[in-house]
Order: sequence, then C-alpha cells, then structure tokens
Amino acid sequence: MRHVPAGGREPSARRKQARFMATLCRPSVSVPEHVITMEETLELARERHAGHPQLPLALRLIENTGVRTRHIVQPIEETLKHPGFEDRNRLYEREAKARVPAVVQRALDDAELLTTDIDVIIYVSCTGFMMPSLTAWLINEMGFESTTRQIPIAQLGCAAGGAAVNRAHDFCTAYPEANALIVACEFCSLCYQPTDIGVGSLLSNGLFGDGIAAAVVRGRGGTGVRLERNGSYLIPKTEEWIMYDVKATGFHFLLDKRVPATMEPLAPALMDLAGTHGWNASNLDFYVVHAGGPRILDDLSKFLKVDPHAFRFSRATLTEYGNIASAVVLDALRRLFDEGGVQDGARGLLAGFGPGITAEMSLGRWQTADERAAVERTADESRGVRQA
Amino acid sequence: MRHVPAGGREPSARRKQARFMATLCRPSVSVPEHVITMEETLELARERHAGHPQLPLALRLIENTGVRTRHIVQPIEETLKHPGFEDRNRLYEREAKARVPAVVQRALDDAELLTTDIDVIIYVSCTGFMMPSLTAWLINEMGFESTTRQIPIAQLGCAAGGAAVNRAHDFCTAYPEANALIVACEFCSLCYQPTDIGVGSLLSNGLFGDGIAAAVVRGRGGTGVRLERNGSYLIPKTEEWIMYDVKATGFHFLLDKRVPATMEPLAPALMDLAGTHGWNASNLDFYVVHAGGPRILDDLSKFLKVDPHAFRFSRATLTEYGNIASAVVLDALRRLFDEGGVQDGARGLLAGFGPGITAEMSLGRWQTADERAAVERTADESRGVRQA
Repeated sequence: MRHVPAGGREPSARRKQARFMATLCRPSVSVPEHVITMEETLELARERHAGHPQLPLALRLIENTGVRTRHIVQPIEETLKHPGFEDRNRLYEREAKARVPAVVQRALDDAELLTTDIDVIIYVSCTGFMMPSLTAWLINEMGFESTTRQIPIAQLGCAAGGAAVNRAHDFCTAYPEANALIVACEFCSLCYQPTDIGVGSLLSNGLFGDGIAAAVVRGRGGTGVRLERNGSYLIPKTEEWIMYDVKATGFHFLLDKRVPATMEPLAPALMDLAGTHGWNASNLDFYVVHAGGPRILDDLSKFLKVDPHAFRFSRATLTEYGNIASAVVLDALRRLFDEGGVQDGARGLLAGFGPGITAEMSLGRWQTADERAAVERTADESRGVRQA
Repeated sequence: MRHVPAGGREPSARRKQARFMATLCRPSVSVPEHVITMEETLELARERHAGHPQLPLALRLIENTGVRTRHIVQPIEETLKHPGFEDRNRLYEREAKARVPAVVQRALDDAELLTTDIDVIIYVSCTGFMMPSLTAWLINEMGFESTTRQIPIAQLGCAAGGAAVNRAHDFCTAYPEANALIVACEFCSLCYQPTDIGVGSLLSNGLFGDGIAAAVVRGRGGTGVRLERNGSYLIPKTEEWIMYDVKATGFHFLLDKRVPATMEPLAPALMDLAGTHGWNASNLDFYVVHAGGPRILDDLSKFLKVDPHAFRFSRATLTEYGNIASAVVLDALRRLFDEGGVQDGARGLLAGFGPGITAEMSLGRWQTADERAAVERTADESRGVRQA
C-alpha cells in the first residue's frame, strides 16, 4: 500500500491508511429568527420567579454565562407556554423538517459533494424524539441514496456533536472512500419546563439556545480538519450529573451543580489522548470544544494551560447563541473557518462534553485541498476502489 | 500486508484486511419470567374489545402471527394498566438495570472476553428513553474502561438489531484489533397503550414481546459469523409506515397495513447486496432475519426463493417470544448456535427490518475458532498493534 502523506506531514502515530484521511469540512450553521437577549432573560426570570428565595443566585449565574443573545424557533411568548409533550414534539418535527434541509444542502455545497456522494447520515439531537429518525425523511426528501446508512443518536446530549464527528471518522476509516454527513439539530427551547424551578433549571433557562448545524466528513479531499485520532472518556460515577427526567410533560433537564467543575477530571483525558498521538494537548494550534458554560472554557484554559484566546470560537458561540447542545462544536469550527482557518498542517483538538459525563475527543490537522489531492482522486476513481 | 484467509476461503469480493475479520459471537438472550400465551391474548382481546367492529379481524390477525407465548417484565394485570409515561419509563430503567448486566456478562463469557477488552458498546432499544443512555451506567456498574465508546441508538426500532451488528462490524473494520459489545434491550410491553384500538394496535398487542440480547463482535478470534459486508436499504417514501406517535402517554406504535408486504421491495435489496459480494441471496447456507411477523418470513421465502426451513430460527423466536424488536436477530442467531452452528465457511445472511422502512443487512461466513487463530493472536499481541 502506497503512503502519500498530505503535505508531507505524517502524524507521529502513523496510520495504516495514511492517504485516506477523513476530513471534516466546513460546517453550515443556522439559528432561528427569534432572538432573546440576556437582558430579556434576566427580566423574565425576575418576573416569573419574583418570590424565589434563590432568585439572586440564579440571576448571577445567568449573568455569568456571558450569553448575550439566543435564537429560538418560536417567539418567547410561545416558548414560555407548555402545550404538552405531544404538541412540543410535533413542533420539533415541523421545525426540523422546515429548517434542516437548507443547512444540509449548504454543508454539501461547501464540501463540494452531492447527496448521492453521501454514504452515512449521522443525525444527533436530544431535544425531540421521532421514530423513524429524521434520517429517513431526509433520505426521501433530499434524494440521498436508498443505501445510505442511518445513525441517529438521541442520548448523548451535548457530547453528541463530538460523537458524530468521531463516528463519521470511524466510518471513513472503515470505508476509506466513503463520505459522512453529520447533522446536529437542537431546539433546546422546546424542552423548557415552566414547573422546574430549581436553581439548575433557572440557569438552564438562561443558558440554552436553538441551532442547527451540518457538516460533511469526506473520506478524501476537502478542506478542513483531517481527522487523525479520536477517543471517548467517561468520568466514573457521574452518570446522574446531567440527565433527563422523562415525564408526561417531556424531557426535564437535570443539571448537577458539580458539572461546571468537570474539566479538572476531563483535562487529563484530553492530555492522554494527545499523548498517545505524540502530541501535547497544551500546545496545539487550534481548539474547538463544547461551550457548555463559561466555567468549562475557563477551566479548560487553566487545566490544559492554554491561552483563553484559543477558545475564542467556542466562547463566541456561547455568547451569541448560548449553549446549542450538540451543535456547539460544529458552530465553533465554522467560526474557525470564518476566521480563515489555520496554516496547512496545524494541529488541533475537537471535543464535545455531555451526559455520562462523557467527552468525545478528536485530534486532527488542518488540511487545505490541493492539486495533488485532485490528481490522486482521479487516479483512484479510475481504479474503482470505492467500496461502501 | 499479509493475507491469511481464515480456513482458506477468501470471499470473492476480497477485503483489504482479510485477516482482521470481525466475528459476531454467540448471543446471550434472556426473556422475563412472566408469560402470556396466545390463548390468553385472544381471551383478553375478546374481553376488552367485545364491541369492537373489527374484533374478528384482529383475532384472526393475532392467530395468524403464530406467536404461542410471550414473556413480559410484569404480570399481565400490571401490564394492562397505564401508570403514565414517567412511571413506565422508570420501570424501563429499573428492569433494564436489573436484567441487562447478566445478559452482557454471558455474552462476554461466551466470547471469552473481559469487560476491559471491549472498545465500544452499541446499545439499541426503542421501548424506553434515558439520557444518558444505559451505556454510561453499564460502564460504571460492570467495570468497562472509561475510554469505551458509547453508541446508543433508539430510533431504528426493530432494524436496530441489524444496525448494531453492522456498526460493530464497521468499528472493527476501522480498528481491526477492537471488540464491540452489542446490547438490545426491548420491553415492548411497556409501550402498551390501552387507548389505541385500531386494528394495527390490537394486532401489535398480540405480537410484541419483551427480551434482552447481547453479543460480542470480536475483531479477531471467536466462533460465529465472520462479518464480510454490510449494507442498508430504505424503501423510498415509506417513512410513515412504521412510526411512533410521541405523546404525554409515551410512545404510541403505529403500524400501517402495508408493512407486511414490504419483503417484495426488500428482497431485491438483499439480492443486490449479495450480488455485490459475488453471492446469490437465494442460495446461502443460513439465514438470520428479523421476524416482524409471519408474512415477513413467508414472503422472504417466496421472493428470495429460499426454503421456509431456512428461516426456522427466526420462526422459533416469533413463536416462542413474539416480536422482541431489535433483539429478534440476536435471538435467532442464538438458536443457530444452539443447533450446533454450521460447517466452517458456510455463507449466511443476517438482516433486521424496521421503521424507515429500513433493512440493515449483513453477509458473513461461519467461522470456528481454530488453533491457527490463537497463534496469530499471540504473534500480533507481541507486535502491539492494538490501536482503538
């Protein structure tokens, strides 16, 4: 087997199929048209929880998030009503069908692929539940091949953005000619539960936002993050720290107050993964991580010994959109693209964090599509090696 | 790269990493202790739907399923009550935690692996919803490594058994030294909806049963089905034929009357996949397919031109346990093992069918662990090639 390292930079932990490197291309992101500002959020909290003994704490926590604006699928007056789980879930389905195809199409366009080039759709979403998953509808609606694999994941919460990247990477490693489409569709506002008035819930009400992101992982070619290694880490005995209480009124988000401190045990897992790859997690060229809240980013900076500026993409997502769950990492990566990317071969880390407590981590290098890639593509197509 | 074909039988569509072939080992299966017979089911239907205009049709359909007994997690008197979605889902969690570990442990024992040998857990279940998924609890409770990947899938319904096998296969193809654990946990009785009285619902009430299955896919070694190729197929424009209506009362299963006839469009997809592999789907040595109902098996026999006896494993699952959703294919495979397996190198097909309408299909050969495999294992361990 020939080895044709892209840009002459082979990772220190040499892969068997170096020339077939999955590349995470430019994510496409869309947030809904209804906007709620931090000031409006604080005012609503003051109005609705006027007599709440912990209101001052809740207000302080919300202010500390730094979330300036969030985008939601309905006007705030509608969002504050709870029409029942059935109507909420119908709304999820309606809004997903109305909004996802355009985001997917842009991700395909940016990756210079057609629907018929896609071998697997990984759809992650924890804010609505459909069976079959939206994957079936997307295949029919957008003209993906009938043979497209479907991997719908609903239960990894905010970590699912990282998980989607990693499962796409694995798929392209198994089938080096394959292309994967990732979709993260999160309408967190549809999980607002008026009767939940614990401090964790009041904070969540001011933290989460809605957003849709999609990205293609190309088995070959493409500009973006050439994925080299991924890993998962579960902090032992924390499975109840972030969870849904599933009720007749839908999914009730429970957030333990220990969650913001979880970067201390997770930072070593990031260091370990990087170390296994011959890299130092403190010394990479770019960082794209889940912005669960401000403390997550502050602590990552502290425990990884990385300049806070490195997390500016994640911070911007948090500030402008709030925590949009599994879509955060894709939006943060989109911002890196918007900044012009980094130099070819620059090393970076992507990570989603969520219930479990689970980290879904990935290491890769920036890759700019070049002419040699095009030449290789043509050569291989003539050999007809596509398998998936 | 050396090619060391197991048993000297290389598949006609030669794989790049022939000596690293994922092997689906003996599934472990458990059904609950509460039993309901066909006679009891019919009697209950007569009692509860005495004035229903389509009762005779429903009774006939139930009789036609051939389901003699089903096993359920609670006594039938409890099952017929609906304590609300919240209690139902708590019951799901409680029963899953009480029953899954023993099934998983047996699957590990049968595959001669320890929890620490497992790299990914694929947990499929459409009859309860938890976030985080049971994977997090299992990792903590049973001592899987903190780095174990979690792939929880809730939205592929009955097709998820086949999907789990296929995603495990893909994972082991990406990481040839890896081992995957598959768990299918289905408590269909917890989705009983007393207010649903359409004929499809009455039929479903007599068709579905509860069951748990687990199996290991070993990257190397092991006895069972050496997985060679997998594929997925979605019948166009059928995404509403099998679906959940998600309500305050939980998941309401909707079954279109056109579903039993779906083997006619799916048989060509099975033929195509086999053809791509240089095989003839009509002429294989064993068949392990989802037994959605009797018509599924009759029609597969007809459209694939395969003797009905070939589907005896699936038929037995249907007869003794009912349709246990994603666990059917694993239970049917377990019955093939119980029969003594087939001769080394025998070619077979596995397939799950479910909402979408989706088929998750797999082709493989029977593989008996032999001494050479053990020798290879030792040699590779000394080279330290494990990557996942």
